[in-house]
Amino acid sequence: MGIPDIAPAGGVAAARVVPRVVIEHVSPEVDGGLFAIKRVPGETVVVEADIFADGHDVIAAALDYRREDAGEWTTTAMMPLGNDRWRGEFVVDSPGRYRYTLRGWVDDFATWARDLRLRVEAEQDVTVDLGIGAGLVRAAARRAHGNEAAALARDAAVLERGGDAAIRRALSEDLAALVARHPDRERASRYARDLVVQVDRARARFGAWYELFPRSCAPEPGRHGTFADVEARLPYIASMGFDVLYLPPIHPIARRFRKGRNNSETAGPDDPGSPWAIGGPEGGHTAVHPQLGTLADFERLVGAARRHGLEVALDLAFQCSPDHPYVREHPEWFRRRPDGTIQYAENPPKKYQDIYPFDFDTADWRALWEELRRVVRFWIGRGVHIFRVDNPHTKPFAFWEWLIGTTQREHPDVVFLAEAFTRPKVMYRLAKLGFTQSYTYFTWRNTRAELEAYFAELTQTPVREYFRPNLFVNTPDILHAYLQDGGRPAFIARVVLAATLGANYGIYGPAFELCERRPIAPGSEEYLDSEKYQLRHWDLDRRDSLRDVIARLNGIRRAHPALASDWTLRFHGIDNPELICYSKTGPDGDVVLVVVNLDPHHVQRGWTALDLGALGLPPDAPYAAHDLLGGGRFGWRGPRNYVELNPAGLPAHVLHLRPGEAP
Amino acid sequence: MGIPDIAPAGGVAAARVVPRVVIEHVSPEVDGGLFAIKRVPGETVVVEADIFADGHDVIAAALDYRREDAGEWTTTAMMPLGNDRWRGEFVVDSPGRYRYTLRGWVDDFATWARDLRLRVEAEQDVTVDLGIGAGLVRAAARRAHGNEAAALARDAAVLERGGDAAIRRALSEDLAALVARHPDRERASRYARDLVVQVDRARARFGAWYELFPRSCAPEPGRHGTFADVEARLPYIASMGFDVLYLPPIHPIARRFRKGRNNSETAGPDDPGSPWAIGGPEGGHTAVHPQLGTLADFERLVGAARRHGLEVALDLAFQCSPDHPYVREHPEWFRRRPDGTIQYAENPPKKYQDIYPFDFDTADWRALWEELRRVVRFWIGRGVHIFRVDNPHTKPFAFWEWLIGTTQREHPDVVFLAEAFTRPKVMYRLAKLGFTQSYTYFTWRNTRAELEAYFAELTQTPVREYFRPNLFVNTPDILHAYLQDGGRPAFIARVVLAATLGANYGIYGPAFELCERRPIAPGSEEYLDSEKYQLRHWDLDRRDSLRDVIARLNGIRRAHPALASDWTLRFHGIDNPELICYSKTGPDGDVVLVVVNLDPHHVQRGWTALDLGALGLPPDAPYAAHDLLGGGRFGWRGPRNYVELNPAGLPAHVLHLRPGEAP
Repeated sequence: MGIPDIAPAGGVAAARVVPRVVIEHVSPEVDGGLFAIKRVPGETVVVEADIFADGHDVIAAALDYRREDAGEWTTTAMMPLGNDRWRGEFVVDSPGRYRYTLRGWVDDFATWARDLRLRVEAEQDVTVDLGIGAGLVRAAARRAHGNEAAALARDAAVLERGGDAAIRRALSEDLAALVARHPDRERASRYARDLVVQVDRARARFGAWYELFPRSCAPEPGRHGTFADVEARLPYIASMGFDVLYLPPIHPIARRFRKGRNNSETAGPDDPGSPWAIGGPEGGHTAVHPQLGTLADFERLVGAARRHGLEVALDLAFQCSPDHPYVREHPEWFRRRPDGTIQYAENPPKKYQDIYPFDFDTADWRALWEELRRVVRFWIGRGVHIFRVDNPHTKPFAFWEWLIGTTQREHPDVVFLAEAFTRPKVMYRLAKLGFTQSYTYFTWRNTRAELEAYFAELTQTPVREYFRPNLFVNTPDILHAYLQDGGRPAFIARVVLAATLGANYGIYGPAFELCERRPIAPGSEEYLDSEKYQLRHWDLDRRDSLRDVIARLNGIRRAHPALASDWTLRFHGIDNPELICYSKTGPDGDVVLVVVNLDPHHVQRGWTALDLGALGLPPDAPYAAHDLLGGGRFGWRGPRNYVELNPAGLPAHVLHLRPGEAP
Repeated sequence: MGIPDIAPAGGVAAARVVPRVVIEHVSPEVDGGLFAIKRVPGETVVVEADIFADGHDVIAAALDYRREDAGEWTTTAMMPLGNDRWRGEFVVDSPGRYRYTLRGWVDDFATWARDLRLRVEAEQDVTVDLGIGAGLVRAAARRAHGNEAAALARDAAVLERGGDAAIRRALSEDLAALVARHPDRERASRYARDLVVQVDRARARFGAWYELFPRSCAPEPGRHGTFADVEARLPYIASMGFDVLYLPPIHPIARRFRKGRNNSETAGPDDPGSPWAIGGPEGGHTAVHPQLGTLADFERLVGAARRHGLEVALDLAFQCSPDHPYVREHPEWFRRRPDGTIQYAENPPKKYQDIYPFDFDTADWRALWEELRRVVRFWIGRGVHIFRVDNPHTKPFAFWEWLIGTTQREHPDVVFLAEAFTRPKVMYRLAKLGFTQSYTYFTWRNTRAELEAYFAELTQTPVREYFRPNLFVNTPDILHAYLQDGGRPAFIARVVLAATLGANYGIYGPAFELCERRPIAPGSEEYLDSEKYQLRHWDLDRRDSLRDVIARLNGIRRAHPALASDWTLRFHGIDNPELICYSKTGPDGDVVLVVVNLDPHHVQRGWTALDLGALGLPPDAPYAAHDLLGGGRFGWRGPRNYVELNPAGLPAHVLHLRPGEAP
């Protein structure tokens, strides 16, 4: 007779034994296991779950994990936290994908031993019980091998003989451990899903980005910059302590519909056009704009950058100008209008006739997708392992999931940064499906309440399992009113916030360090004389440059492991809403406390209300607060300390807290 | 060329078109769709989800539902709530199982029409655009049939011709609605799972239970009560307004190891034994204890009860006494000890030698499970459609899931109440896997803070989707210290709380209405002279009986639909912690507000702080508060009103709020 009629959701198998243990509410788990959590090597994956069985038997649980490309699972014991919650953990040690899952089983021997102890304490005759225990130990012996099997068989005989010696052995921790090494796996419940960890290299979690237009790097005004000019600029960038040098598209630029200065409809003869209007007679996404140099020049730049501790990141902008070779070679990859023309990009009523979007719905989509992957592979072959992806939210989710998934399977060290400024759920989806890092709403979060709410969401909710923020203070498209109005103090405040709130952050320079803040029109976030449409010549040696402040900030970031992760971020009270106060804590007791004056126009003062527990500080003992940014040394005590920040000087403290030290 | 290498989690199909719409975070959904949500006929299932696509196209979404035993899906449109959240709903109308799922698709026509409007407003030439629109309408025509296909074809021609007439038609709501009726389903994303609604009959959501020992129903002291005696008791029970009459096990009782009065080890010759020690020479779970009468007598009782508006519920206690026929006929269904004896129940060091638990792990488990289902079917055949299940948490989860699932497939009106007083996650699991109702921790929640926290969890969190509380004020096993100490005022307070906090509640009588409160020992929750082990004779006509109070409460429950559901429960402020204040609202503006004095010893006074919005009351207008329990009529106004409750009288108000009325 079979068990007929229905397959209950919980899963009655046709097995000899129906597993009794339930495993549910596993954490971390993104969307029921559909997507991976993200980690970097050395990080711990702490896994919790509700694990329980019917009745009152003792249960045991294990956390199993393995690299996806390895056959063998490693098993680690889970520990009960109370209320049927269990916890286990493992460390991931190299980039790639790991899997983890859970098992739980009724532990007959532990149940028996627990009950035996109660019976012995109640002075009951346990002769028959010892016989039952002997059977359990014999069963463990059958599951064991070699010495342990023999030892278990001897123990079974001891129990069988009964008496005090049997009781002592039965209740020994020794025997418990020996039997526990040979559980009855046949009766274990296994969690229904394997969950995935995407382990990215360390740079995915921690890095300072510098964006720059190579075209503006010529030392003399008016000349189009080259890769060689960028090479000459490397010491300057490296001296500020950046890790990643991100270049806007370096490909040939359209002739037709080329935009002029300040996004004017028609370009003058010397206007270079927007680098995002990709493709010209010289080639497309795998070609280099001739005015920048050759592919060999680019490869030399990549190597030189590496010697300066900088990694070059490229822009992946999957769209074409009307002059792109694809338009001629693969007209089927574009949408055609009834009049026979190719559909250009639009945001009605605005028309972008210099941009042809790909038709990802084309019947030939497989070839299109493969070609775009070939582009990525091409640049990986030239030493580029970081890509900043332009507007990923306007291409299908499934495309990115496939592109990133297959690329990282071949090259686990490749990083993809999503430049999607769109609705929150779309941004989170892109992060879930594979983007290593993501641009954020940071530029538009300027008040204390906005910053606290947003960073609580990013760093203290399950969002952090898959969404790694990269906080840009500005971009070629975003010059926020706060910077326009606040000037230099606002620029400093924002870069301190970015560099300390975010383990990953970036600036678009030299516009940023030179406090460029003229908008194209009042109320606009677009730059006047934007490098998107023209060459600019920057005076890097201006006395008001933020170069030194930024160099100090990046130096602090490298010296203080507390700033290399986002998860320990905690906000603290401070009794002035123009001031914001937060901390990060790192290994070896590293504690960095930041206070920023968000008002670029006035001195602001306040008293902190520090959460001393979160800072690892005793309730009432003095401690030193060394300002790593400004050099001040303060003697603080307890939660309440006075802060005064003048935007005319440095509008922020970045304090290293040193318990037990005098200032 | 295929898309190789990897099957992304989000699901790139090998389809012609990769669906672009994402559907996630669906609510309600229990454990990723593993379990059903619960409803009763007439209730609405409100479904929400995050639904979005890449880019900026207009999308549409549908909620599909059907009875599990019907082939056809019914489709209903979902509406956007903002921030990519969508909502749809449907009403379930009969017991059984329903399925629901969601679809979303990019709406090309709506996208086009939106953009056309913007172009027209910007006074652009839209000739080519109208051609594109004509193509979309033609495509819709091909998906339509008959008149609508013809109409769409005519519309396509109108658009094709261009001009103002084409623009007017293109932007008409008419055409939008017509095209929307024929969406391109090929490109729709369908949610990965079908979700399930278990629709139980109305009694599952709302009912007052009365538990009674038939053995104690004889009108004269000392005689063993019979089913006929219970029949004679029906008018009394019905007069109190109960809906369900629940009987402890009615089967033959063990001889061997029979317990005596007050759970003594040895029974006297006249001691009847515990009805949970099921099975004797006369039979087992499908037999009737001879002293109660015959199976025919039982069936007559069931019919008589029905005529009194009462439904008889039986106890399912799946365990055996040593004298149960199964022990002889199916020794393989029990665990054997090394000395050859059968393993009795234990809670070490306590031994329950009168009870043999089934070995659900037996090699012959299929036969055991089938036999237990036969027991359920047997009693269903005798008119029993409600079962109170004894200690379900000590049997495998998979067994219950199978038993309840297959039983309800045949008999959708059968109700199972889980008597599991155990850890929260185990109780919730039993509810998820199928139990219609569940006992709760209510008896142990006596302070205002305890009650507010517990009922917020039960009625305002996703728990409510699957866990239907049935609030017993006492059981033969639970006489809480609050009742022991508080006496009659405590009994009234607790029954008011149970009857108004819970759409389902129950009492174990006549012990309850007669305020029986003597424990077997100080500090114990066991009754002295418990009916579990002896006959009792109750004087139902005692002047201090709560019979009238309970009758009034049940009358109020029947008259006020607000009390027929738990989901509208809201707690209100009141400035005395000994008072608790809450409301329920029902259809047609029915509002019941309850205030209970939780201190059985002293008068308590306080001022309410009512959430007028939740009550549907205007901020500053008078309203009448009629005390349905005590008869008082108060003129109230605004959130702040005075309440004084004397436990010597009635320790509670059950107020019907009537806006705009004078008291």
